[in-house]
Amino acid sequence: MTPTFEEFKAGLDERESRRALLTRDGRPFFVLLSQQFLRPDIEMLCDTATAIRRLDRHVDGREFLRGLLRGLRIMNLFAQPSTRTAESFIAAADKLGANSRLVSDLRTSSFAKGESIEDSVRTLSSFFDAIVTRHQDDDFAMRAAWSLAASRRPIPVVSAGSGKSQHVTQSLLDLYTLRYSFAERGGVDGKNVVIIGDIARNRAARSLAYLLTRFERPRIHFVSPDAFAPDDELMRYLHRHEVETSVHNALQPLLHDGGNGIDAIYVTRLQQEWDRGNNGIPDAGERGSSDDYVLKTEYRRLIRPDCVIMHPLPRVNELPESWEDHPGFMVWRQVRNGMWIRAALFAAMFGADGEIRARAGRLSLL
Amino acid sequence: MTPTFEEFKAGLDERESRRALLTRDGRPFFVLLSQQFLRPDIEMLCDTATAIRRLDRHVDGREFLRGLLRGLRIMNLFAQPSTRTAESFIAAADKLGANSRLVSDLRTSSFAKGESIEDSVRTLSSFFDAIVTRHQDDDFAMRAAWSLAASRRPIPVVSAGSGKSQHVTQSLLDLYTLRYSFAERGGVDGKNVVIIGDIARNRAARSLAYLLTRFERPRIHFVSPDAFAPDDELMRYLHRHEVETSVHNALQPLLHDGGNGIDAIYVTRLQQEWDRGNNGIPDAGERGSSDDYVLKTEYRRLIRPDCVIMHPLPRVNELPESWEDHPGFMVWRQVRNGMWIRAALFAAMFGADGEIRARAGRLSLL
Amino acid sequence: MTPTFEEFKAGLDERESRRALLTRDGRPFFVLLSQQFLRPDIEMLCDTATAIRRLDRHVDGREFLRGLLRGLRIMNLFAQPSTRTAESFIAAADKLGANSRLVSDLRTSSFAKGESIEDSVRTLSSFFDAIVTRHQDDDFAMRAAWSLAASRRPIPVVSAGSGKSQHVTQSLLDLYTLRYSFAERGGVDGKNVVIIGDIARNRAARSLAYLLTRFERPRIHFVSPDAFAPDDELMRYLHRHEVETSVHNALQPLLHDGGNGIDAIYVTRLQQEWDRGNNGIPDAGERGSSDDYVLKTEYRRLIRPDCVIMHPLPRVNELPESWEDHPGFMVWRQVRNGMWIRAALFAAMFGADGEIRARAGRLSLL
Repeated sequence: MTPTFEEFKAGLDERESRRALLTRDGRPFFVLLSQQFLRPDIEMLCDTATAIRRLDRHVDGREFLRGLLRGLRIMNLFAQPSTRTAESFIAAADKLGANSRLVSDLRTSSFAKGESIEDSVRTLSSFFDAIVTRHQDDDFAMRAAWSLAASRRPIPVVSAGSGKSQHVTQSLLDLYTLRYSFAERGGVDGKNVVIIGDIARNRAARSLAYLLTRFERPRIHFVSPDAFAPDDELMRYLHRHEVETSVHNALQPLLHDGGNGIDAIYVTRLQQEWDRGNNGIPDAGERGSSDDYVLKTEYRRLIRPDCVIMHPLPRVNELPESWEDHPGFMVWRQVRNGMWIRAALFAAMFGADGEIRARAGRLSLL
Repeated sequence: MTPTFEEFKAGLDERESRRALLTRDGRPFFVLLSQQFLRPDIEMLCDTATAIRRLDRHVDGREFLRGLLRGLRIMNLFAQPSTRTAESFIAAADKLGANSRLVSDLRTSSFAKGESIEDSVRTLSSFFDAIVTRHQDDDFAMRAAWSLAASRRPIPVVSAGSGKSQHVTQSLLDLYTLRYSFAERGGVDGKNVVIIGDIARNRAARSLAYLLTRFERPRIHFVSPDAFAPDDELMRYLHRHEVETSVHNALQPLLHDGGNGIDAIYVTRLQQEWDRGNNGIPDAGERGSSDDYVLKTEYRRLIRPDCVIMHPLPRVNELPESWEDHPGFMVWRQVRNGMWIRAALFAAMFGADGEIRARAGRLSLL
Repeated sequence: MTPTFEEFKAGLDERESRRALLTRDGRPFFVLLSQQFLRPDIEMLCDTATAIRRLDRHVDGREFLRGLLRGLRIMNLFAQPSTRTAESFIAAADKLGANSRLVSDLRTSSFAKGESIEDSVRTLSSFFDAIVTRHQDDDFAMRAAWSLAASRRPIPVVSAGSGKSQHVTQSLLDLYTLRYSFAERGGVDGKNVVIIGDIARNRAARSLAYLLTRFERPRIHFVSPDAFAPDDELMRYLHRHEVETSVHNALQPLLHDGGNGIDAIYVTRLQQEWDRGNNGIPDAGERGSSDDYVLKTEYRRLIRPDCVIMHPLPRVNELPESWEDHPGFMVWRQVRNGMWIRAALFAAMFGADGEIRARAGRLSLL
């Protein structure tokens, strides 16, 4: 019996059934939630990303990489437009030789003629070997995965950001950047991470917090307006996984009191686009972030020179350009890392990652 | 002397001049009308499609296929948006190694600056080796073919659906699916086919009927609202080609009286998008198809288990999901077949089909 | 110290500093102005274009070309939509094996979320090896080049038309077409060229005039409505470079008096799209070009049969179809030449042009 969508969704709550639903032959098949990645998965993805990044530097390595997924076709179905995320996935696929298509205007598809989502996804999936999808509806990627799982020609689905809840591959690239930055300082375990912004609604911030639970004793300090503080579901999950947390509504006091102990600051934008027409919610973003959530230039003296500075972009005023020459400024590296970790994810999905790591190892690149 | 457009168009009415205008070196060059394909053409295209489909299953075959049209560039000029048809053509080209571009928003081209259609098509054609085009104007693809035929650099043109009149490649995939389904039952000759829906305006339904005339003694039973019954031109063509027809305005009596003798049922959507603002015509589609044109679940007991069930998609309510487990349900196979038959068409146009069938034959795949 | 944008821009005015800012290792890196190309650059680009055009005729040459830039990724960032220019660049890149992406709807990028142009360009640039950009803002391409020049991962930028000021690659293709046309007549030096249309605002016309200064004693006769006569900056530049010019406000008298001495006529459209809402300016384009700026069929008897006829397209009524069989009609060749010269430019930028010319030379194609 094929499960109903509700059964499928309920199955994602528990670790064992989640793994059964989302992986095939030990590989990621549906990539929907940051929680689906365990520590060994993350370590292996990061190693693969590093291998790809280093192999790509020389013409031989590039040719090797471009032969791995040749002939594969990937559909990027982006109902919620995002040029940069789409281009990052497309570049990642291209690095491994796979072809991508971007389908972004769903009005031109048959949704408009009264067709069901399941029919649309299944029809389009017929021409592809994997789907990457972004949608304003929290459940869209799950629903696509569920309907394909029950079909005669199931293909992998990767969520590229769903609604306000999750942004799995953003959290993977953020984690990869943290791991890279802390390579000489004992790795991510036990680090002190500040996350600033609109936590309740920022899927990048939330997904990163979920992923940090996979490491030993991290401490997370959230800084957000009271109205956008981390939700109960997230906080319960963090506590269940023994993450030490604190919640603040202004940045300055936190840095003033303990700036020296902070290993990384993850700044995010207050997201005004969700606010339109929601009169009940304070309109925090209209003028950019208010002072309390801006990483001011003057805070440089409150933190260590090796403190990592990150931002998922786009930024408005909350991370001034004056930070660009700070030794820990990792924002542009994050962008490139997004391409490498997505390539690593494709490699893992299609079983090419072992070969990549082996070659990089043989060439002493890992 | 180059012909005027009217002369070109008149030349398409008669079999010999049509062949002279639309083929070069025995290969399809302009693909505009289902009627241009004779039985040997169709059989050969279907064999090529099967060869491609089977070669594509293994890495060697895929590499062979991807080398065939490498370096060719195909423009998909879609004035009438259709994500799925465009993606089907693009996937087909990709299977053979050709590169595709989708040009869908003609407002961004120079049409908007007062340029003639002929100039626009000719300019864009300069960068490509073939054009696939869909347009709401019945004559667009013909006009493009005509103007290119007279130029110094003529390139092939394939209609991907023009106005309400024809949808050539849809009819080829439908025919290919019928031929596949009847492979063990003597082929398409002499079969009883029911076509349900908005016949007068559904180009898929009309094109399939035209193509069935290439087979021996088929019988076609049309079921449609009176206002959308098959037009005189189509009926005359069918009779001239000795196709036995009947016309009905409700499905249930037809299946009740003779359901056991029916070999295939081709269901189509009543197309509400043409109705907007046409007050004289009953607005059949607003609520989906009315009961008389729905293939109800309860009809399963009226037809044979091996009766083929097809639909060109998108569907609304006229083909309920309960049919998906019927042994003759071929709808998803139609979608994949669209990709294979379009690849076969490209192969035939560029002279690569003989090599494909030869290789498949040598490997006992045909 | 990195220069400010104003310093960067000022540096482009003078030949030596311009060359320092725009080239790297002797290759074009930022392509922003027609003036940046000196005569040897132009000759070499034209030779490369011819080599590519001829190598492309045979399967071996095509395979050779497609291997040259394999793995390179080019972003076409077109804020001002232009299907044909974008497709020309994409085809050019494809001929050399590079992959292209067209990003045309900036509303779907993060510009809309308050991000700076510099951040947007830099983020997107992370996934690419070069940027081709068109923008209604005269400074956009310059600003992109400037911000990338200062970054840790600078990549080349090519302007594909900026505002009303320049259209560098159009002028290169026009020059290439002139050079080709005059190959048996002593080349471009000393030729008499008529440029008709909306000179003040037509970037193609202006860029061609700038490029003609690189040749010996050309004479340029401008024909335009008084309101759109060549601007002072352009005229001063031409005189400083010893180009003989004349300015007219009607075509007929010029051809009547000296038609026999004219070597090439470059016709352009009066551009009504800039006029919308500009009430002070005569609305010349609404009805197509007025009689004074139309190359009438009857003028054929006033010019030599070998006079070259060119137009950057799109055209409305200013170059009637009756000219298509004139021996000097080069319009369709210009379109194809655009693809070849852009491929030559990419080859020069990435250092593949020497190999192309060497191979073509060895095969006696140059």
